[in-house]
Amino acid sequence: MSLITKVFKGDFFHTLGLKKFQHLSNHVLGVNLYGKIEFLKPISELDELRNRYKFQESIIKDLGNGFMVPGFVDAHAHAPQSVNVGLGTDLPLLDWLIKYTFPTESKFQEADYANLVYSRFVKRNLQQGTTTTCYFGTIHLDSCKILVDLCTKYGQRAIIGKVNMNRNSPDNYIETTSDSIRDTEAFVEYVKNQPTDLVEPIITPRFVPTCDPDLMYQLGEIAKKNDLRIQSHVSENKDEVAWVKDLHPECKSYSDVYYKHGLLNDKTIMAHGIYLTDEERKLYQKVGASIAHCANSNFTLSSGCLNLRQLLDMGIKVGLGTDVSGGYASSMLQCIRDTIICSKAKSFETQDKHNEIDFREGFHLATLGSAKSIGLDHKIGNFELYKHFDALWVKTDVENGPFDSFNTDSIEDRFQKWIYLGDDRNIHKTFVNGKQVK
Amino acid sequence: MSLITKVFKGDFFHTLGLKKFQHLSNHVLGVNLYGKIEFLKPISELDELRNRYKFQESIIKDLGNGFMVPGFVDAHAHAPQSVNVGLGTDLPLLDWLIKYTFPTESKFQEADYANLVYSRFVKRNLQQGTTTTCYFGTIHLDSCKILVDLCTKYGQRAIIGKVNMNRNSPDNYIETTSDSIRDTEAFVEYVKNQPTDLVEPIITPRFVPTCDPDLMYQLGEIAKKNDLRIQSHVSENKDEVAWVKDLHPECKSYSDVYYKHGLLNDKTIMAHGIYLTDEERKLYQKVGASIAHCANSNFTLSSGCLNLRQLLDMGIKVGLGTDVSGGYASSMLQCIRDTIICSKAKSFETQDKHNEIDFREGFHLATLGSAKSIGLDHKIGNFELYKHFDALWVKTDVENGPFDSFNTDSIEDRFQKWIYLGDDRNIHKTFVNGKQVK
Ligand SMILES: [Zn+2]
Ligand SMILES: [Zn+2]
Repeated sequence: MSLITKVFKGDFFHTLGLKKFQHLSNHVLGVNLYGKIEFLKPISELDELRNRYKFQESIIKDLGNGFMVPGFVDAHAHAPQSVNVGLGTDLPLLDWLIKYTFPTESKFQEADYANLVYSRFVKRNLQQGTTTTCYFGTIHLDSCKILVDLCTKYGQRAIIGKVNMNRNSPDNYIETTSDSIRDTEAFVEYVKNQPTDLVEPIITPRFVPTCDPDLMYQLGEIAKKNDLRIQSHVSENKDEVAWVKDLHPECKSYSDVYYKHGLLNDKTIMAHGIYLTDEERKLYQKVGASIAHCANSNFTLSSGCLNLRQLLDMGIKVGLGTDVSGGYASSMLQCIRDTIICSKAKSFETQDKHNEIDFREGFHLATLGSAKSIGLDHKIGNFELYKHFDALWVKTDVENGPFDSFNTDSIEDRFQKWIYLGDDRNIHKTFVNGKQVK
Repeated sequence: MSLITKVFKGDFFHTLGLKKFQHLSNHVLGVNLYGKIEFLKPISELDELRNRYKFQESIIKDLGNGFMVPGFVDAHAHAPQSVNVGLGTDLPLLDWLIKYTFPTESKFQEADYANLVYSRFVKRNLQQGTTTTCYFGTIHLDSCKILVDLCTKYGQRAIIGKVNMNRNSPDNYIETTSDSIRDTEAFVEYVKNQPTDLVEPIITPRFVPTCDPDLMYQLGEIAKKNDLRIQSHVSENKDEVAWVKDLHPECKSYSDVYYKHGLLNDKTIMAHGIYLTDEERKLYQKVGASIAHCANSNFTLSSGCLNLRQLLDMGIKVGLGTDVSGGYASSMLQCIRDTIICSKAKSFETQDKHNEIDFREGFHLATLGSAKSIGLDHKIGNFELYKHFDALWVKTDVENGPFDSFNTDSIEDRFQKWIYLGDDRNIHKTFVNGKQVK
């Protein structure tokens, strides 16, 4: 039996960095028994590879006039809110939480409801080519376990956090500090005891207003003790920033609250960061924390428009998040488009074209950029050797597809049309960890 | 034989004005032999209607948990550029015209090419629920005739213009003034002699920089003599505005150039208008000219962000245009979403929430608003009695559809999810003039 289980030949697109877009044409990629990329070579070396690895000719799949890209990584999404996508678009953050989001999330004390909603969302993610999502669950331990089970069952890579909230929350959707800590520890334990490492846990204080200092401090301790990732929200909305300032006059800034409680370090990913101060940005740079940029959500909740380029220029790690359902679109293709549009809006506002993000940069941010932001770039994000094979086989010529191709379109044109106009109908197959999951 | 050929019962959404969104539930709509709406009544009146019109029970179609909306109206699109959607997104307007657009449009001297591209685009429009498009063709008479024939063949309502260009254009894509006028007159004649009025002609100087004063003046005369609509571009890009100022120091503004040449009146629709001055806006208000707002294009070509609310507050007629392929998306659903996002960007920039457009307003602008902007609201745009039945039967529960519905979703939730997340897969049937065309 060969070490090689899958071989694809044709065109591959991926990135090695923000400005390092690569198109490898006439290449051949081999996936090994462990679901990792064993080789990616010019097709001229195929005979040699076949001699070395002894795989059958018949396992070679020709990508045809399609191509392969790394799977998308959604750096920030709320699984329970997926039931609300496209709804409740009339209110800004703090009112929206009270009217739409907390009532919806509180329903996840019911396991059946969690099963229904989460199974649909995990399947839709794979359908749309999101091979990894960094999820917020709810405060409910059992529902969070269900999300772990469903990602494992359907084969989506995920980082999952049980949400913590012990203040400024509705009576039917709040926990005591001790319950919050106990359930968080139980959840981390549950994820660590899974037979595979497809799912990893993350410490998830919702945001400063809903977590008191004691809770934040204890969560920081759990993260430190277990060397865990941390996710939360920061500086999404002006009223929120003012509220945090009110709650924590002893801290220099919103980010400083997290920092002081042991929640901001090189394993932290914070959503939004629109209204970060210069000093805060320097703190992210210094400690190596990441930002999940959620353009659609920032428009939809009328939060504001992030200066993405400013963060990138400082070398701050940035991933892209759909922020379902603050953002209505769970598709990372849509997320790339909205990121580009948001960058254009910022460039109009600042009269500085440098702030524009192009589609190749958007593609980078949605794959390797997001992987880096959630600390998974040693495993996924592009087609580097021995990374896990999380990938999409894209076809632009599909019956009743979302756009027209013409025979004058080069393969690079097809890639670009897909970024701007493609959807799940173009995703012929989705692979995670070498396994076909769509 | 009954006067009534089609009857639908269920939920209908349409608008009577910008802030006059209507949801008619449990209604019944009848289409007559002439393709017009004969009745739209509460279902309680069905027996009475059946007695009056003597139609068979069997022709009544139940919309189920779907619903019906007026067909979308694209107020501004370039049919020849549909081959380039999603491509050439790296340059601003004037460079983009030279590098991508003029070379593509020049190919439409070949009838075969026009046939290939135009037939795909007309079919895609119907597929996506655009029942009417206000098209720019190219300078080529024969290709423009082909577009007329294809709209007639596939059943799309259209307003079509042969483009005029006699200066500042490439050698292989320019006409003499006399050819331009002769072909324009021949085109108008060709359209007027069509057996149906599904397609109407429109006078289409490309924009001031490519049309000299003599040509503009003569086109204004043709429009006046034949009582024709006029379309062009205005104030899309700062360099363009500066260029026009250079070309026409004798005129007060870009719009004034059109006005002075008889091209700006209550039958005119101008695309973009981002950089209109106060005085120009007042001119539109005074003469009753319309603006086609093309949000996606304005982002994609880095043109700028229109203050849409300002125009609406002044009572200026505004339609929505995809501006394919300055805009990459031919879908009017995407156009609504990008219009909302553009309005949010403008509201961030101006720090004025009043500038936000909501999804009901966006829906209005994409239907009745666009119909008004191109002078077709006496025929189409909503479900008023005796308007032509141009409509979409939308289903939100479709296999492999673009979003998930839950049984907690009301019909209004389904409508809203469709606006934000739907696509052509949700358009079960498209009707134009009472005839099913998808
Ligand atoms: Zn969030
Ligand atoms: Zn245009």
